[in-house]
Amino acid sequence: MVVKVGYLGPKGTFTNIAVDALFEAEQTVSYRTIPECLDAVDTQEVELAVVPVENAIEGTVSMTIDYLIHQVELPIIAEVVVPITQHILVHPEFEGDVERIEHVYSHSHAIAQCHQFIHKEMPDVEVHYSASTGEAAAKVKDLKGQHAAIGNALAAQEYGLKVLRENVHDYNNNHTRFVVVQKEQAPVEMKDHEVKQQKTTLMVTLPSDRAGALHQVLSAFAWRKMNLSRIESRPMKTGLGNYFFIIDVNQSYDSILFPALQQELKALGCQTKILGTYPCFEIQSNAVYKM
Amino acid sequence: MVVKVGYLGPKGTFTNIAVDALFEAEQTVSYRTIPECLDAVDTQEVELAVVPVENAIEGTVSMTIDYLIHQVELPIIAEVVVPITQHILVHPEFEGDVERIEHVYSHSHAIAQCHQFIHKEMPDVEVHYSASTGEAAAKVKDLKGQHAAIGNALAAQEYGLKVLRENVHDYNNNHTRFVVVQKEQAPVEMKDHEVKQQKTTLMVTLPSDRAGALHQVLSAFAWRKMNLSRIESRPMKTGLGNYFFIIDVNQSYDSILFPALQQELKALGCQTKILGTYPCFEIQSNAVYKM
Repeated sequence: MVVKVGYLGPKGTFTNIAVDALFEAEQTVSYRTIPECLDAVDTQEVELAVVPVENAIEGTVSMTIDYLIHQVELPIIAEVVVPITQHILVHPEFEGDVERIEHVYSHSHAIAQCHQFIHKEMPDVEVHYSASTGEAAAKVKDLKGQHAAIGNALAAQEYGLKVLRENVHDYNNNHTRFVVVQKEQAPVEMKDHEVKQQKTTLMVTLPSDRAGALHQVLSAFAWRKMNLSRIESRPMKTGLGNYFFIIDVNQSYDSILFPALQQELKALGCQTKILGTYPCFEIQSNAVYKM
Repeated sequence: MVVKVGYLGPKGTFTNIAVDALFEAEQTVSYRTIPECLDAVDTQEVELAVVPVENAIEGTVSMTIDYLIHQVELPIIAEVVVPITQHILVHPEFEGDVERIEHVYSHSHAIAQCHQFIHKEMPDVEVHYSASTGEAAAKVKDLKGQHAAIGNALAAQEYGLKVLRENVHDYNNNHTRFVVVQKEQAPVEMKDHEVKQQKTTLMVTLPSDRAGALHQVLSAFAWRKMNLSRIESRPMKTGLGNYFFIIDVNQSYDSILFPALQQELKALGCQTKILGTYPCFEIQSNAVYKM
């Protein structure tokens, strides 16, 4: 069976790169907000969704995590890491180099990611902010002339633009992270990628705001030698001063360590919830698209 | 001396509410990205800046924290918490209720924050995404007719719109957080607010990725009964697998506990850096602006 996959659009975003790396294009459906995308899985309009959990331009970790915690019950079945690579995109008929560019268009977060480059190489350029990197690319295709967009290699391909300068982002080791969520547990066919790591994501709520409670929780992981790759406190939506923690453990859910850990935390007055146990893939954003 | 205060614009955003709550309007200068805003303090174009560190529509925690860690050395001197309140804004000549609205405009994150309301009360509306809530408000002012923007009370005031429906955001206890940063240590005059809490923010880097290292770090806080109100792991820009932690402690930096804590962590092979010790204010976003 060919499943349908929702993702946070528009086309040409890093989420689009992540979804293309795992699924065939004819399976994918673009949504404009994270809640819309997750609701589509919940109502079974689509079987799966790919949504950002870190550093993506179109959404924030908190939006995805909060929605998964408070609104919908959708296990995470995979994680994809995509390096952030931004390029200067121009109309195919554009001639010359960056100093000929008078106007640059992009989402404000993409502009921010290339702040040093713009400052040094295009100090006099007029910057225009758009609702998405895709919208910026479409505009540059229409306008021709001394206009450029900032976006990734997929945006160049999708909107028929030329990559004038590659890798103009300020940090080389910056990356975006995405999760694949599913409602019904069913085997899913994904394109082949090397599994970098197995992970399990838990939500832990503490019994009270007392000093050392988190330390006590982490003891339960530490003495089992369970390695954490992420921890983040998030305020509960029930008011200030109440927190829950999102914890990524670098191993698969098992029938011994995890149930014992959960029981121990329960005895301490904590609630735990497993958000998923899944493989992590890492893909190259430039390698996927020939420029 | 009247200081100049940079903030992440445009007008009518929650950052604008935060900056207005602390400073007089004639002091404030709007910037379009977080790096621009922080660079302006660093180059002393402005003395202070107000930038988001959580849940703001225009920027993400990672953008501010990463820039403060990697690019500029600007201590945090205050924190401001503003509840998220979104309203349906229409042209002052608009008559009728939400069912007469055919088009709604806003930033995709603001649309996402009102997802349930739109779904239930305006199911057939056409949603348009703009680069900012301010841009959406300006558009609705120009277009008149059956158009609405989603934004806060300040956006209504700034762009001369009428609040048709108050509090259409999905969560009542959602809030945004901002920090005020300064380059030169000099006394700063701010409008009077009750101090809710004193906080100190530290960055801690672990010696290696080994299991339990974080637990060991938190022991140093726990046995001193230092209460943490936030912890977040962030990847270093030097590659995958290296992390640092941002930790908020609910007390002022002192001459005994903190230096001893830092020495103990140093002995464990950790690096620590104090990002600031400061008062936290909480303001009401609707109370500030008479509707």
